Amino acid sequence: MKHLLVALVLFSTSYIGAQTAVSPSKKIEVNFKLSATGQPTYSVKYNNNTVVEKSAMGFTLKDKAALTTAFTLEKVENSSFNESWKPVLGEQASIVNRYNELKVALIQKESNIKMTIFFRVFDEGIAFRYDFPKQKELNYFIISDEVSQFNLTENYKAFWLPGDFDSNEYEYNETKLSAIDNSKIDMNNGIGVKSIPGKYIVQSPLMMKSDAGLYVNIFEAAVVNYPVMHLNVDVKNFDFTAQLVPNAIGDKAYLQAPCVSPWRTIMISDDARDIVGSKMILNLNDPSKIEDTSWIKPMKYVGIWWEMHVGKSTWDFAGSQNAQNSLTQDLIPSGKHGATTENTKRYIDFAAKHGFDGVLVEGWNVGWEDWFGNWKEEVFDFVTPYPDFDIAAVSAYAKSKNVKMIMHNETSGSVSNFERHLDRNFENMVKYGYPATKTGYVGKIIPRGEFHDGQSMVNHFNFVARRAADYKLMVNSHESTRPTGYSRTYPNFIAAEAARGNEFNAWSNGNAPMHETILPFTRLLGGPMDYTPGIFEIKMNHYDKSKTEQVHTTLAKQLALYVTMYSPLQMAADLPENYEKYSDAFQFIKDVAVDWDDSKYLEAEPGDYLTVVRKAKGSEDWFLGAITDENARNTTVSLEFLTKGKKYKATIYADAKDADWKANPIAYKISTLTVTSKSKLKLNLAAGGGTAISFQLID
Amino acid sequence: MKHLLVALVLFSTSYIGAQTAVSPSKKIEVNFKLSATGQPTYSVKYNNNTVVEKSAMGFTLKDKAALTTAFTLEKVENSSFNESWKPVLGEQASIVNRYNELKVALIQKESNIKMTIFFRVFDEGIAFRYDFPKQKELNYFIISDEVSQFNLTENYKAFWLPGDFDSNEYEYNETKLSAIDNSKIDMNNGIGVKSIPGKYIVQSPLMMKSDAGLYVNIFEAAVVNYPVMHLNVDVKNFDFTAQLVPNAIGDKAYLQAPCVSPWRTIMISDDARDIVGSKMILNLNDPSKIEDTSWIKPMKYVGIWWEMHVGKSTWDFAGSQNAQNSLTQDLIPSGKHGATTENTKRYIDFAAKHGFDGVLVEGWNVGWEDWFGNWKEEVFDFVTPYPDFDIAAVSAYAKSKNVKMIMHNETSGSVSNFERHLDRNFENMVKYGYPATKTGYVGKIIPRGEFHDGQSMVNHFNFVARRAADYKLMVNSHESTRPTGYSRTYPNFIAAEAARGNEFNAWSNGNAPMHETILPFTRLLGGPMDYTPGIFEIKMNHYDKSKTEQVHTTLAKQLALYVTMYSPLQMAADLPENYEKYSDAFQFIKDVAVDWDDSKYLEAEPGDYLTVVRKAKGSEDWFLGAITDENARNTTVSLEFLTKGKKYKATIYADAKDADWKANPIAYKISTLTVTSKSKLKLNLAAGGGTAISFQLID
Repeated sequence: MKHLLVALVLFSTSYIGAQTAVSPSKKIEVNFKLSATGQPTYSVKYNNNTVVEKSAMGFTLKDKAALTTAFTLEKVENSSFNESWKPVLGEQASIVNRYNELKVALIQKESNIKMTIFFRVFDEGIAFRYDFPKQKELNYFIISDEVSQFNLTENYKAFWLPGDFDSNEYEYNETKLSAIDNSKIDMNNGIGVKSIPGKYIVQSPLMMKSDAGLYVNIFEAAVVNYPVMHLNVDVKNFDFTAQLVPNAIGDKAYLQAPCVSPWRTIMISDDARDIVGSKMILNLNDPSKIEDTSWIKPMKYVGIWWEMHVGKSTWDFAGSQNAQNSLTQDLIPSGKHGATTENTKRYIDFAAKHGFDGVLVEGWNVGWEDWFGNWKEEVFDFVTPYPDFDIAAVSAYAKSKNVKMIMHNETSGSVSNFERHLDRNFENMVKYGYPATKTGYVGKIIPRGEFHDGQSMVNHFNFVARRAADYKLMVNSHESTRPTGYSRTYPNFIAAEAARGNEFNAWSNGNAPMHETILPFTRLLGGPMDYTPGIFEIKMNHYDKSKTEQVHTTLAKQLALYVTMYSPLQMAADLPENYEKYSDAFQFIKDVAVDWDDSKYLEAEPGDYLTVVRKAKGSEDWFLGAITDENARNTTVSLEFLTKGKKYKATIYADAKDADWKANPIAYKISTLTVTSKSKLKLNLAAGGGTAISFQLID
Repeated sequence: MKHLLVALVLFSTSYIGAQTAVSPSKKIEVNFKLSATGQPTYSVKYNNNTVVEKSAMGFTLKDKAALTTAFTLEKVENSSFNESWKPVLGEQASIVNRYNELKVALIQKESNIKMTIFFRVFDEGIAFRYDFPKQKELNYFIISDEVSQFNLTENYKAFWLPGDFDSNEYEYNETKLSAIDNSKIDMNNGIGVKSIPGKYIVQSPLMMKSDAGLYVNIFEAAVVNYPVMHLNVDVKNFDFTAQLVPNAIGDKAYLQAPCVSPWRTIMISDDARDIVGSKMILNLNDPSKIEDTSWIKPMKYVGIWWEMHVGKSTWDFAGSQNAQNSLTQDLIPSGKHGATTENTKRYIDFAAKHGFDGVLVEGWNVGWEDWFGNWKEEVFDFVTPYPDFDIAAVSAYAKSKNVKMIMHNETSGSVSNFERHLDRNFENMVKYGYPATKTGYVGKIIPRGEFHDGQSMVNHFNFVARRAADYKLMVNSHESTRPTGYSRTYPNFIAAEAARGNEFNAWSNGNAPMHETILPFTRLLGGPMDYTPGIFEIKMNHYDKSKTEQVHTTLAKQLALYVTMYSPLQMAADLPENYEKYSDAFQFIKDVAVDWDDSKYLEAEPGDYLTVVRKAKGSEDWFLGAITDENARNTTVSLEFLTKGKKYKATIYADAKDADWKANPIAYKISTLTVTSKSKLKLNLAAGGGTAISFQLID
């Protein structure tokens, strides 16, 4: 986390100076202007064309006058910044953070309240945040609404999720902005808790594309002590207004000056690769606050998890797989409980044999007989194993095999209860040598009335990461607020789900083939995702003839996801027996890295396709992942990323000729080639298919 | 906690039997009746006169049909119970629990929901509770309202507090029921957070007296996983309806069958002593759930506390005594900080010299510069001392002097924050040998939207007691929900404030002279109160000539409070220098016991006077406390409680002849006498005065 190069150049300070900043490339320009009423506004141009029209800024406050108008300019400063920093884990060894900054210090007449707006203009977009300096006239305040607007100029195509305050686990809708309408979404989608406040509210990050081919993405960074921002859409004028998630009594954020808002970001490019490969969100977060990060390690893991999703075993000891059967007088084990000592040892053996770092075990602790759907406060105590799970024996066995156990902390949304047991849980993990926990938040939040995306929950997720750091533990949160780069500040926040993961394919309408081509443009901008790829037995009728659910990809695409879906924590999600059955394809999962020295996005089109190559950490090996949506795709990639003059053995895991995500998803073909940086490779992706390639240095 | 005698006699079971139960004395009779619409109702008679007219019972539920009508009788059972049990700490060595019980099992037509109502009739009153057995038709449910009524027949005089959801720290109003009106209360009363939902809502326990001299008290017992019940008053018809305290979104209680409601209690007697001395509330709670109670000890303590109240020193390190001065850039110590190592050692020396068990220190931990009034979530971390408080040195010094330190955990109402740090706080206490904590809840509750008296806060207070028991620690909660006997179940919940304590006399309009004559009939029925008596320098102009505040008693009454106000945790609240100044009077505080083998209420009239004698635990010594309200009082007490044939030295701490709580409050006179059980003593109590007597066995 050392700064390799820092260059901060203050090049202009004036009391009423130029209220403009441009990107280092000069392509993007942001302009600030106070309106006639003294309202702060901004606009954005790309290549001299207006992308964001004059848009309002400011806040309404509870029990205080609004911070929307009557401002005067106090000071304007322009500066320039350029540094490189090394992430603890990441897509590349070093990240450049380069931008020009415009700082506009405002003061409100009469109230004398000071508010400063910072703009940063990067080559791939702009960001702004509000800053409230320490001041007599503003100490504590409550945000009733943030009025920040993002007024676009045309009817973009958008990849949008309904602005649900409790869930980000929807499928993407691909429509024009004018067609956004939450009331038209099929809600039979496997999501347990939904809180959609209106027809025209969507989530950020919102990825868009204009008819002319301009890509625009609205998101936020460094959401700390603040609620998540969703977006209210004016579907006629293509204007967006910030929609902060309220708390139980309708307030949005409780703040005390000095403080800052999150960054509001607008990425703009005519090349989608600039957006999918952007590190702007990470750059806008604070550097690591963890001094010694040596204990933060990437992990590839297997686990007792998918077997519950496919119905082979159960989370609960009783084995009824009924989450609300507290009425059963005597819970008689059915023998289907997944998290047994014996089964866990089987997974540990499998992990050790195939070189995995970790084993996750879900359903190991008491409570699963009556945990879901009833807003129950005290379900789990997070430390008491079921009688058939000998945690001491399991952890000793794992240690003897040099495998790490991964804790599972389902909270059922009862955050109050989890926080009461958090230290005890972490102490238990340290006692048994678990280096990481997967947390879960399935259910309505307790304290009751709070939403998953409110300020107090944002604070909770961040708090769990910080508290875990006290114990040198890593966190992977599921059903959480989507991340906005906090993993830069707390790199032990190693991954999160916070989007519709692979699991939905097991028991719901699933994830359409385009799903994984969108996530890198949206969810992944904020941090790594524990998507749990690697499902080989694609169709659920493998387990139960009556089932029609399936994974909406080919097997080869499941392999490619390990490269396209960046995460330093990656699961090989399928069952050991399935990997043994397709052991040649499994070799890719065994080989692929999860931490990288370099990454290049070769081809990118949201909703359509993505081709990525990455260089493994501390190695000369490269890995390629190429995926497509429901359309088959043929493409040729140049291997010029390989080191010149070196030879590599390329092992290509491709869709078979007759492969098809629906009709014939498992059909794959493995071939090997010797290649150099001068080689070109033809890739043939089936409908819903993909290609994964490992490049091993020969000499 | 062993049962000395248990006699349970089931004497009647019938499908439609007598729906009546009478007290063992036959004086009180409760009648159950289903109305024509199938609504459960009850009525109560005392000496054959109706005290409670036909009153409705039942609930309205959220998203479910109401449990108010359409019930049929399934089964009626009568039984009888008689046992004695030994409290760990208490007013007497053994408590008799004797009642007749009526169990009415109901079933609701159509819904098939089962609800059982238990009535218990003691000699001093009746109690009823709702019981929801395990059943298919009712698993989880949410109480929207409890419709329990208490329909009185006449316009009683009442000692009432406004039904504030956040505070029980009001002075008592003494009016007829018809004159209850919260809008007429002077709200300039020193209470920081107020939430009064309407004009005609009062708190329970509600003590009343009829024109004919009948005493009636409405309260509740065993409030566990349920909100506090206040009372909606129909001031024309003298009817009361349960007013449960809501949560942030308006729900009252989240329950899962099998479960029970708290007991609703109505005490009735023509002798006020039966009520003030009743153990009914304790009897209605579960026996101790702590197996080994050997570590639960009574404590008499001094502390760094009153000196902050009188302005001699400050809680905060900076010493501005400004709870909201986060704006001060540099907090420069003023030298007025109370909780210094040096000052603490002075208190430890004082405690050791005079035989006190403990020393409380408030303001020892960082956070006090900006802690109050702004709904701030993260104020204290509960473990970090100010730089001038060396916790290791202090605890070592206390240990060397055989004195115990008492922890102070002010939460500022931020329960979320406290629960996050609870284990760390308790571990810190164990590390430094603190056996007890005084918790504080000054401020609006966080999670925001919750009230001090809601279900989640009731659960919090109980949880803190249970969690403390894990560490063998005792809890004394201030600004908490008033107790309803949970100290029987968790005897380490040694005391609570939960009413207007002595501190209000230091800086507000204070506590009228009648205040302490009412508390034993109300607040103390639910458990011991940490009232912090023992203030000798009655008038605050002692510290600052400009001050007009004062304690509203004489000095002698302050002594008497150690006997009239039962608590196994009693503070000698005044400053060491004041006790040294009045060292002869101080002798009573040094001598008085705080745990008892027996207690007798010799005279009792709520709002007027109280005379109590108690026999010290494991000793032949007795102590008498007599107090009066604003009226001077002369009375004669017979000493027949003393052991026959034995001689005692009585040391009498009385008001001087010219004493008066306002004009001459400190004037006292100490005399000694030799007395026997045949003696009678004349007591002369000044206006706002009292008498305290110690009886030491001579032979």
